[in-house]
Amino acid sequence: MSPPSLVAQSFRAIDVIRKKRDGVELTQQEIEALVSAYTRGDIPDYQISAWLMAVVLRGVSRPETAALTDAMLRSGEILDLSSLSAKKVDKHSTGGVGDKTSLVLAPLAAAAGVVVPMISGRGLGHTGGTLDKLEAIPGFNVNLAVSDFRRVLETCGCAMIGQTSEIAPADRKLYALRDVTGTVESPYLICASIMSKKLAEGIDALVLDVKTGSGAFMKSEKDAAFLAELMVETGERMGKQVVALITDMDQPLGNMIGNALEVVEVIEVLRGGGPEDLRELCLHLAGWMLHLGGAAKTVAEGKQISAQLISSGKALERFAQMVELQGGEVHTIDDPHKLPKARYTMTVPVERAGYIATMQCEQIGTACVILGGGRERKEDSVDPAVGIVLHKKVDDRVDRGEPLATIHYNDEARAARAKQLIMQSCEIAEKPNSHKRPLIHRVIGK
Amino acid sequence: MSPPSLVAQSFRAIDVIRKKRDGVELTQQEIEALVSAYTRGDIPDYQISAWLMAVVLRGVSRPETAALTDAMLRSGEILDLSSLSAKKVDKHSTGGVGDKTSLVLAPLAAAAGVVVPMISGRGLGHTGGTLDKLEAIPGFNVNLAVSDFRRVLETCGCAMIGQTSEIAPADRKLYALRDVTGTVESPYLICASIMSKKLAEGIDALVLDVKTGSGAFMKSEKDAAFLAELMVETGERMGKQVVALITDMDQPLGNMIGNALEVVEVIEVLRGGGPEDLRELCLHLAGWMLHLGGAAKTVAEGKQISAQLISSGKALERFAQMVELQGGEVHTIDDPHKLPKARYTMTVPVERAGYIATMQCEQIGTACVILGGGRERKEDSVDPAVGIVLHKKVDDRVDRGEPLATIHYNDEARAARAKQLIMQSCEIAEKPNSHKRPLIHRVIGK
Repeated sequence: MSPPSLVAQSFRAIDVIRKKRDGVELTQQEIEALVSAYTRGDIPDYQISAWLMAVVLRGVSRPETAALTDAMLRSGEILDLSSLSAKKVDKHSTGGVGDKTSLVLAPLAAAAGVVVPMISGRGLGHTGGTLDKLEAIPGFNVNLAVSDFRRVLETCGCAMIGQTSEIAPADRKLYALRDVTGTVESPYLICASIMSKKLAEGIDALVLDVKTGSGAFMKSEKDAAFLAELMVETGERMGKQVVALITDMDQPLGNMIGNALEVVEVIEVLRGGGPEDLRELCLHLAGWMLHLGGAAKTVAEGKQISAQLISSGKALERFAQMVELQGGEVHTIDDPHKLPKARYTMTVPVERAGYIATMQCEQIGTACVILGGGRERKEDSVDPAVGIVLHKKVDDRVDRGEPLATIHYNDEARAARAKQLIMQSCEIAEKPNSHKRPLIHRVIGK
Repeated sequence: MSPPSLVAQSFRAIDVIRKKRDGVELTQQEIEALVSAYTRGDIPDYQISAWLMAVVLRGVSRPETAALTDAMLRSGEILDLSSLSAKKVDKHSTGGVGDKTSLVLAPLAAAAGVVVPMISGRGLGHTGGTLDKLEAIPGFNVNLAVSDFRRVLETCGCAMIGQTSEIAPADRKLYALRDVTGTVESPYLICASIMSKKLAEGIDALVLDVKTGSGAFMKSEKDAAFLAELMVETGERMGKQVVALITDMDQPLGNMIGNALEVVEVIEVLRGGGPEDLRELCLHLAGWMLHLGGAAKTVAEGKQISAQLISSGKALERFAQMVELQGGEVHTIDDPHKLPKARYTMTVPVERAGYIATMQCEQIGTACVILGGGRERKEDSVDPAVGIVLHKKVDDRVDRGEPLATIHYNDEARAARAKQLIMQSCEIAEKPNSHKRPLIHRVIGK
C-alpha cells in the first residue's frame, strides 16, 4: 500500500534509466539486474529503448561495458568445449561487402590443428552474412543443436552455425530492439553484443577483424580503433586472448559479392587462387589464429603454415569435410558451377577513361541487397544466386566502355536499379591515387 | 517485395529517431507525422521512448518546440469559447508544495470579469495537484463534459476541470510514457506538454507561475528561467499573450499542505486572511491575469482590484458559486470544519533553538505523500483529509520543543515516517539569514 519508491526496495528500471540519462556510471549489480529482468520479460521494451538511447548518447565506461558483456553472456548457456584438447580460437568481422574470409579461415585454421567453434550472423543492411553464404551451398545446415555442433567440431575441428536460442538470449532480444530504435550505432553496445556471443562459444582466443571505410559500419579509422580497443580490453578483462586488426573496407573485399558467388571465390582461395586482397587478408587473419591457437610461434609462421595448407589442398579438404558433416551437397565444392546460378547476367560498363579513384562500397553492398542478395529487414529472405562480380577495383586503369562489373540477376527491374547504383559508386580520376590505402591499417592488442 | 527503405517512401519513425539521436533539427512535417502516428497507435511505445530520450539529451530548437506543441495541440479538440465575449485568461503553475493559488485565482479573476477556463492536473511525486484539492470538497466534479464546462463558464466566469480525452490526447499518451522512461525532465517536453493543453482551452492569454527552489521541479533559477522563456516564446509564436513569473518554491507556499487543508487555506485567503506569502502571490498573479484579461490597465491596478474583490466578499461568493455549479457541497465553503478531517493529529517539535535557515521543501511534499495525501503512481488514490500544517517557516526564530508542524493523519506508521522527514527537512542556524529569498524572482515576457 505504501508508495513504492518511498520505501526501501530492490531494483527499479526507472532509476537505472535516470542514472544513465544523467551520465552517472552504473554498478555491475544494476547492469546485471537490468539485463536479466529484461531477458525474463520483467521490463518492457519501452524502458529498455530509453535506456539504450541514453547509453548511445551518454556513453558508458569500460567497467560498464564489461559488466554489460558479462550480463549478456550469462543470460544464456556458455559452451564447455574443454573435452577438446586443442585451443579454441574464433575470428569475428564487424561486417563488410564481399567479406567471405570466415569460410576460408575456419577450415584453414582447423587444418592446422586449431579448433574453430564459429557462431555467425546473417547479413543486415548493405553487409553480407556468413550464414547466408553457407546456405548458398545446397543442404548446408547452420541450425545445428549444440550436441551436433560439438560432434562436427570433434570430427573436423571446425563448425559454423547460427546463434541458438541458448546462446546470449539477452543479445537476441536487445539487438532486435536496437534495430528498430536507432540504437545500433554505439561502440559500447556493439562491443557487448559481439563479445557476449563470442565468449559464449567457450573459446580461448579471438581474432577480431574491425572494418573501416565506406563499406564498413565504422567509416573512420578513429571509430574503428575505438571499437577495436574496447573489444580487446573487454575480452582481456574476461581472461581471453584477443587481438583486433583494423582492415580496409573502402572497396569490396575480393571481386565477388552475393552469396553463391562468394562461395565460388572462397573455393578459389582454398584452391590457391582468388583475388590478391582476399587471399592476403585470409592468410594474415589465419596467421593470427594459428599463433593465438598455439599452432605457430609467430604470426609470420602462422601465415606460412596457412599458405602451405592451401597449396597442399588440406584446407579445401577440411572445408569439404565440414560441408558434408553439416549436410551440404559436397559435390558443389568440387564443381562450383553446380552452386545456385542466376538466370541472367548484365554488364555494367565503365563510363569514362581514367583511374578508379574511389568506390562507394556501401552503395555496392546496397546494389546487391536490391538484387535480392541481402536483406533490409530481418524477415526478408535472400536469393543465393544473385550478386555482382567486379572486374575493376580501386587504382585500376580503365577505358570507357570496358566492363566494370557483371550483375547476376533474376529480376530485370532490380538489375536496372543495381546497375545505376554501381555506376554511381565509382569515381574516376585522370591520374592514379598518389597513396594507396593499406589492406591492414593497424593491429590492436597483444 | 522490394526492401522498404531502398525505395522512395513516406515517413518512417526510425529515420526521425536517428536524426534526433544525431542532433539534427527535425522539420515541422516530421514532428507532426511522428506525433499523429503515435496518437493513432501506428508507432510503438519503444520507438517513441527512444526518441524522447534523444530529445532529452540532444535538446531541440525553438521551432521544433513550437512544432511539437502545435502537433500535440492539434492531436485533439481546441475549445472554441468565442461565444463568451470577455477575454479568456488562464494561469498555470509548474508545480510545488502547498501551491493552492489556482483555487483562489479562478474565482477572483472571474469576479473581475475575466473568463477563466481552467483545465488542471493531479499531483504527482512530491507535488500537489489542483484536481485533488478540488475533490477534497465533497461532491465536486472535475470530470465535466465540454458542454457542461462551457455552461459553468457562461454562468460564473470560471470553471475548473481535468484533462478530457478530447484535449491533447497526444500529451496524455506521451506523458504516461515519459513518466516511466525517465524522460519527464526536459524543458522542451515540459513546455510542449503544458502549452499544448493550455492552448487547447481557447484562451487569449496565459499567466505562468514557474516555480524554483528545493520544492520545484526546476531547482535552479537558471533552469526555471530557461523553461519560462521557452514557454513564453512558444505561446507568443502561437499568437497568445503569455507572461511567466519565476516564483519561490524553496519552502512550501502558505502553511497548509494536504488537499482538504489547502482548501481551508484557500477559503482563508478569499476571506481576506491567510498567510502573507500565499496572499501576496495570489494578488500578484491575479494582477497579471486582470491586466492581460483587459480588466485592469496595469498589473498594480489589477492587484488593487483583486484586493477589493476579496475584501468585498465577491471573490469568495464566486468560488462558492463555482463549487455549487460543479456539484460540490457548498456548505463546506461556509463552514470549512465540514471538509474531510483526519482522525488524528501529532505535533512535530523543533529540535533546537535558533533560526530556520532552510527547509527541504521536496521532503515536506514527500512527507505529505507518505501520509497518503499525494500519489507516487498515477493509479494511487489520495486521502483528502491528511496533511501537514506548518507553524514555522524559513527565517522564523524558534525555541527547542516548540511546535514546528502538526501532522493530520489516519495511519500511525505513516505519520511516524512523515514526522521524521519533516524534522530532517529543517536546517536550524544560530543566526538569521543575511538575505531573504524574494517571493517573486523575475517576470519574463510582456
